[in-house]
Amino acid sequence: MTRLPEEVHYNKAFGWAAKDSSGVLSPFKFFTRETGEKDVTFKVLYCGICHSDLHMVKNEWGNSIYPLVPGHEIVGEVTEIGCKVQKFKAGDRVGVGCMVGSCHSCDNCINNLENYSVTHGGYSNTMVVDEHFVVSIPENLPLDATAPLLCAGITVYSPLRFYGLDKPGLRVGVVGLGGLGHLAVKFAKAMGTNVTVISTSPSKQKEALENLGADSFLVSRDQDQLQDGIGTLDGIIDTVSTQHPLLPLLGLLKSHGKLVILGIPGKPFELQVFPLIQGRKLIGGSMIGGMKETQEMIDFAAEHNIKTDIEVIAMDYVNTAIDRLLKGDVKYRFVIDIGNTLRPSS
Amino acid sequence: MTRLPEEVHYNKAFGWAAKDSSGVLSPFKFFTRETGEKDVTFKVLYCGICHSDLHMVKNEWGNSIYPLVPGHEIVGEVTEIGCKVQKFKAGDRVGVGCMVGSCHSCDNCINNLENYSVTHGGYSNTMVVDEHFVVSIPENLPLDATAPLLCAGITVYSPLRFYGLDKPGLRVGVVGLGGLGHLAVKFAKAMGTNVTVISTSPSKQKEALENLGADSFLVSRDQDQLQDGIGTLDGIIDTVSTQHPLLPLLGLLKSHGKLVILGIPGKPFELQVFPLIQGRKLIGGSMIGGMKETQEMIDFAAEHNIKTDIEVIAMDYVNTAIDRLLKGDVKYRFVIDIGNTLRPSS
Repeated sequence: MTRLPEEVHYNKAFGWAAKDSSGVLSPFKFFTRETGEKDVTFKVLYCGICHSDLHMVKNEWGNSIYPLVPGHEIVGEVTEIGCKVQKFKAGDRVGVGCMVGSCHSCDNCINNLENYSVTHGGYSNTMVVDEHFVVSIPENLPLDATAPLLCAGITVYSPLRFYGLDKPGLRVGVVGLGGLGHLAVKFAKAMGTNVTVISTSPSKQKEALENLGADSFLVSRDQDQLQDGIGTLDGIIDTVSTQHPLLPLLGLLKSHGKLVILGIPGKPFELQVFPLIQGRKLIGGSMIGGMKETQEMIDFAAEHNIKTDIEVIAMDYVNTAIDRLLKGDVKYRFVIDIGNTLRPSS
Repeated sequence: MTRLPEEVHYNKAFGWAAKDSSGVLSPFKFFTRETGEKDVTFKVLYCGICHSDLHMVKNEWGNSIYPLVPGHEIVGEVTEIGCKVQKFKAGDRVGVGCMVGSCHSCDNCINNLENYSVTHGGYSNTMVVDEHFVVSIPENLPLDATAPLLCAGITVYSPLRFYGLDKPGLRVGVVGLGGLGHLAVKFAKAMGTNVTVISTSPSKQKEALENLGADSFLVSRDQDQLQDGIGTLDGIIDTVSTQHPLLPLLGLLKSHGKLVILGIPGKPFELQVFPLIQGRKLIGGSMIGGMKETQEMIDFAAEHNIKTDIEVIAMDYVNTAIDRLLKGDVKYRFVIDIGNTLRPSS
């Protein structure tokens, strides 16, 4: 399937890369493959900063290869297509997420993410991607606020669909109000569910109810509120990536309720079995989504006017943004204005 | 719904009870209510000894009230029915499991088990039970080997159905080969699935394959076998009630595979999130089943000739049986021959 290396020609590209695990990015020149017959080449215009970029930059998952250009919430405009590309043409608005290649044949193709660590990402001027991994972005969606949908958006959309938490009238909890959480609220509301934001921080109540449109708010450290909420939710989307107790969350679920974990804490959770057994509650996880569903999510966002709440930054602000992101100091996603602020390094 | 105590008349009954948390049973006299208009009264013929009887006898769940007559795998023959009973008549072969009463109205009615601890159980000569909680036992099922189906049987049958692990050709793992596990193998095979028994003990291989009809056997302490089994199972029924690592079991599942936990260890499990997220695997639990499904299970057992492997004992052997059960020294269920061996205490 892949041409041998000696047959492939390369084009110059530039971006910002981690050179080591220090967590600091700096300008970097590299090469992309030339546009293959099934490839779409596009000029990157915006790229979101996802928390997992930080994990990769710092080699916190142990699989980073340096230099590493992060970025997997990428939107741009097509500049060139291969001769066998059918879905796109030059000038099209496109997006690319976590996946840029896979075997196309194994059962677990959707989970085949090894390319993420060996292909340079969207903190760069250009991308060359097999058209299978490219989605089309409808005209009514702003490119900057759409970039984070390619990872954060599909990450919350897919479990809402897969676990059947997408039916009008169902009661859905969203734990954590960050990049993932605020989008979970928006998608769940657009699907017609009744949304409760669950947070350790009472200060987020106004934001949750008034700005994001949640129906109710529950402070997870307040025992009275937890008690009142017992057995009230059909499902919970848990976006918190630090360790936290699952037992109170399981308590909030109705029988047959589903707790969906999206974050990956450094340590294992404690799992008490009684709530699973007594109410036949489920614990599941989810990770991004397939390409068909990613396009469906983008089209759903276009139809329901769902946009990420973003802070647009210049490329050379990225290291400051990373520091702020680590402190949770962003509402709710940084998006780098690659098109206007990434300059070729000298 | 319930008549006031002063209106209820009582009949004499006898059985064996725990008088305290020592774990020892002894003869005991008590009263049952008279047959109410919706009640079925039956002579107890056989009663299985379930591991949870031991938990109750020793107050290990903290909710036991003494004296306590255990037993919730009960079969017998109807002796009297109330005037509004429709489904049964005197002489019918009937069974009763964990549930003998509930509110009939709340969402969680199925989980309403408080009656278990306040109603005397099947280690006794007679039972009076609302007909809603009585199942009919087809003629071709032997009463002794059917008794354990009322708890152990429904406990494994219900999750096989609920989690969709009942389709011919699916690959189902069964962890632990005890009272629950050996029935899980039989039901899963009867549903047409391909069954792998997973055990710490290689000595059970012959039994699993030759006597119970499992298709394959995997020693869970053998790293090579675990490695070979990665991603091969659609679901796992985990019947082990002591703490054990879940990670190797999750590894055996295909993407979207389901790990169903039926045992309740004293300590929480460690839950690593990565396998849940990467393969969108699920962890769920299950507990017995509703009355409709319990009858369905009994009828399925009759159709497929599923019987518990039992050792029939006399009533006065019960304390020895409890000691042996604690050591795992039974294949696979003790059943007390109440009808022939329980004598009125003097």
